[in-house]
Amino acid sequence: MNKQIQVGILGFGTVGSGVIRILKDHNAKIRQVTGEEISVKKVLVRDIEKNRGKISEGIQLTTNEDEVLADPEIDVILEVMGSIDSAKMYITKALKAGKHVVTANKDLIALHGNELVALAKENQCDLYYEASVAGGIPILRTIVDSLASDNIQQVMGIVNGTTNFMLTKMTNEHQSYEEALKEAQELGFAESDPTNDVDGIDAARKMVILTRLAFGMNVELDQIETKGIRNLKSIDIETAKKLGYRIKLIGTAEENNGGVSVSVGPILVPEAHPLASVQNENNAVFVVGAAVGETMFYGPGAGELPTATSVVSDLITVAKNIRLGTTGNVFNSYQHETKLMTDEEILSKYYLSIEMNDRTGLFLELTKIFAASDVGFDKIIQEPIEGGMAKVVIITHLMNRKQEKEILAKLKKADDMNLLIHLKVMEG
Amino acid sequence: MNKQIQVGILGFGTVGSGVIRILKDHNAKIRQVTGEEISVKKVLVRDIEKNRGKISEGIQLTTNEDEVLADPEIDVILEVMGSIDSAKMYITKALKAGKHVVTANKDLIALHGNELVALAKENQCDLYYEASVAGGIPILRTIVDSLASDNIQQVMGIVNGTTNFMLTKMTNEHQSYEEALKEAQELGFAESDPTNDVDGIDAARKMVILTRLAFGMNVELDQIETKGIRNLKSIDIETAKKLGYRIKLIGTAEENNGGVSVSVGPILVPEAHPLASVQNENNAVFVVGAAVGETMFYGPGAGELPTATSVVSDLITVAKNIRLGTTGNVFNSYQHETKLMTDEEILSKYYLSIEMNDRTGLFLELTKIFAASDVGFDKIIQEPIEGGMAKVVIITHLMNRKQEKEILAKLKKADDMNLLIHLKVMEG
Repeated sequence: MNKQIQVGILGFGTVGSGVIRILKDHNAKIRQVTGEEISVKKVLVRDIEKNRGKISEGIQLTTNEDEVLADPEIDVILEVMGSIDSAKMYITKALKAGKHVVTANKDLIALHGNELVALAKENQCDLYYEASVAGGIPILRTIVDSLASDNIQQVMGIVNGTTNFMLTKMTNEHQSYEEALKEAQELGFAESDPTNDVDGIDAARKMVILTRLAFGMNVELDQIETKGIRNLKSIDIETAKKLGYRIKLIGTAEENNGGVSVSVGPILVPEAHPLASVQNENNAVFVVGAAVGETMFYGPGAGELPTATSVVSDLITVAKNIRLGTTGNVFNSYQHETKLMTDEEILSKYYLSIEMNDRTGLFLELTKIFAASDVGFDKIIQEPIEGGMAKVVIITHLMNRKQEKEILAKLKKADDMNLLIHLKVMEG
Repeated sequence: MNKQIQVGILGFGTVGSGVIRILKDHNAKIRQVTGEEISVKKVLVRDIEKNRGKISEGIQLTTNEDEVLADPEIDVILEVMGSIDSAKMYITKALKAGKHVVTANKDLIALHGNELVALAKENQCDLYYEASVAGGIPILRTIVDSLASDNIQQVMGIVNGTTNFMLTKMTNEHQSYEEALKEAQELGFAESDPTNDVDGIDAARKMVILTRLAFGMNVELDQIETKGIRNLKSIDIETAKKLGYRIKLIGTAEENNGGVSVSVGPILVPEAHPLASVQNENNAVFVVGAAVGETMFYGPGAGELPTATSVVSDLITVAKNIRLGTTGNVFNSYQHETKLMTDEEILSKYYLSIEMNDRTGLFLELTKIFAASDVGFDKIIQEPIEGGMAKVVIITHLMNRKQEKEILAKLKKADDMNLLIHLKVMEG
């Protein structure tokens, strides 16, 4: 007594064809798990003439979105085309037509997620987006279902595969930033304009989504302190390594006293920390809960089949809901008033690399700048460099953002001192 | 319009009090997520006089199980008392009385899970057991929900915290087996009779449950090749380290060609593999899916609050099902005919440590034993030891279990050769 569930897909790129492949290859298991026969009826494509081989057999292709969105036989729409504006328009149409939606579109969910979730609820439709963060890692469902009993305190994620690949190359193979970027581009991990990846924008969008689910709060992109890896030098990666750290681009969302703070940036991670050993293009999300303690979820952050796995798992959940008559319940029902932590509440240790004139007394001046803001040192390395200059690397004790801003302002004004880079340091 | 859900708990040990603590501390979030007020009405205890402090305020304690199991106001029973026979009897009673059940009892679920699942279905009740494997790591729900779209090929788990703690101490601090066991016992990680942990029995029970969920197959405990760490010597840990491996107690379940093979034993794990860096009493489950590729789920495998987190997450799922009217759907609907792999199909590389007389020609004899079974060497280390003896350590190429058995039988018969230990080696 299997019912037929008909699916329309928007987009026939890598994820779209991955979805079709998984639905074919794992058909027997999916039928048993859902109690339904799931079949792809139509796919919206850009170029209908393109030869797609056997994979498109039995599926109607169209370049007209309304043929998919307005087909009364289609129960579920999978949006895997990317872009923001047209995807939003199509999903809106689909939900208004009473169709359930699964999307892999992080940009869309980060920017318009709340609006679309409300629209889905209004129309008694499901809206899932597991694939939008960390590709094949089921981190959203884990936070929503399995950690529902816990109060989450911190989420730290390596959620951008491109930069993690580049940092791995820079760390293990001593490549420069430029070499690592070139290799990532050659392998198809980075786009020709790598801005979204290397400047941390992609990671920040994913942190918007993770913050919404983990803390029930809505943080805007411009409320996230976002730094990329563009200015990272091999020498800093080497120095960090000597001090027992690996540099990773980490998105951090933490809650304290009812307020939340979200940031993205390269961070010194102690080498024994589970996040330090996440290699290449893999992703990982480290979650600290008041009760559960430290957990980590690791896997492929992108790629045709991993991302498609998450899309199809969402589709299976929709199919089960259809069978049980329980569609239209929002994925995440945890909501909280959004409150940002103040500068005084946001604490971190820092790594600072300062180039300065090697003259007597200047190190004392440097020390005074930190002492004036009541910040102590955890580690100091001073090395002479050419031209009568010295390089001083400092790892500080914990300081708050107010102290950080004071110190940075003074370092900027100080003669004969040049702050090369400053990075957060994760506590061991 | 919150409904009240009343809970009865069997057992007021560490997990039981952890559950009560979480329900109190995280009350606001849980109420919002479930739309229900969840309260603990009664707890079955062994000693009613014991002073439990503030945590038991407002809760009725009883030593008579029927006062809990037959209370018509109680909707859900949480079984956190351990033991097999009485837990089974109580859960059976509860399900027959139409109460939903959450249990943390791996022994019970490994041995009688199918029977209890059938009984739950018959009575339209929920039966969940996330906490039974890997404590705070939501691995069961991840396999059942998030990897439902994938065909799982392999599950490898560090699912026993006690032995992982001991192996960490032996590896990092060069402790002997006896020293590590003593420290584990002092810290309360190991019982005075450590058999279940150190001989791999606890891990094997968890692999029964993981195999059921990942492959839909029922494997009996005596069909699992189970080895413990009792005979592991520091020297093997050192040698493995020199060769680039860490020794971990790993439960492995793998599928090939419709057949499954499950085993537990100490394995040489390449040091770059994510499982190699799982330290101390932590657990981790590494899952390989046909589509998703390699994923890993890491966290605390035991402990009051981590385990209680999983129990309460199950309870939240039950509460949602009650609200939606969808109880009685089995946790895992994936079923498959159980078929074991044959000896010819089970492949592994092996580490063998052999003590032998240092006389000319004996190494040739050793080589012939492997060549006769068509097994090649990946690495060989020969070192002279005292008394005219030599120690030969070999890492082989892949061989099947038939070849393994042939070689072991010949090594046993050979004069002047003494096989000290042989362990599986995970491929890099």
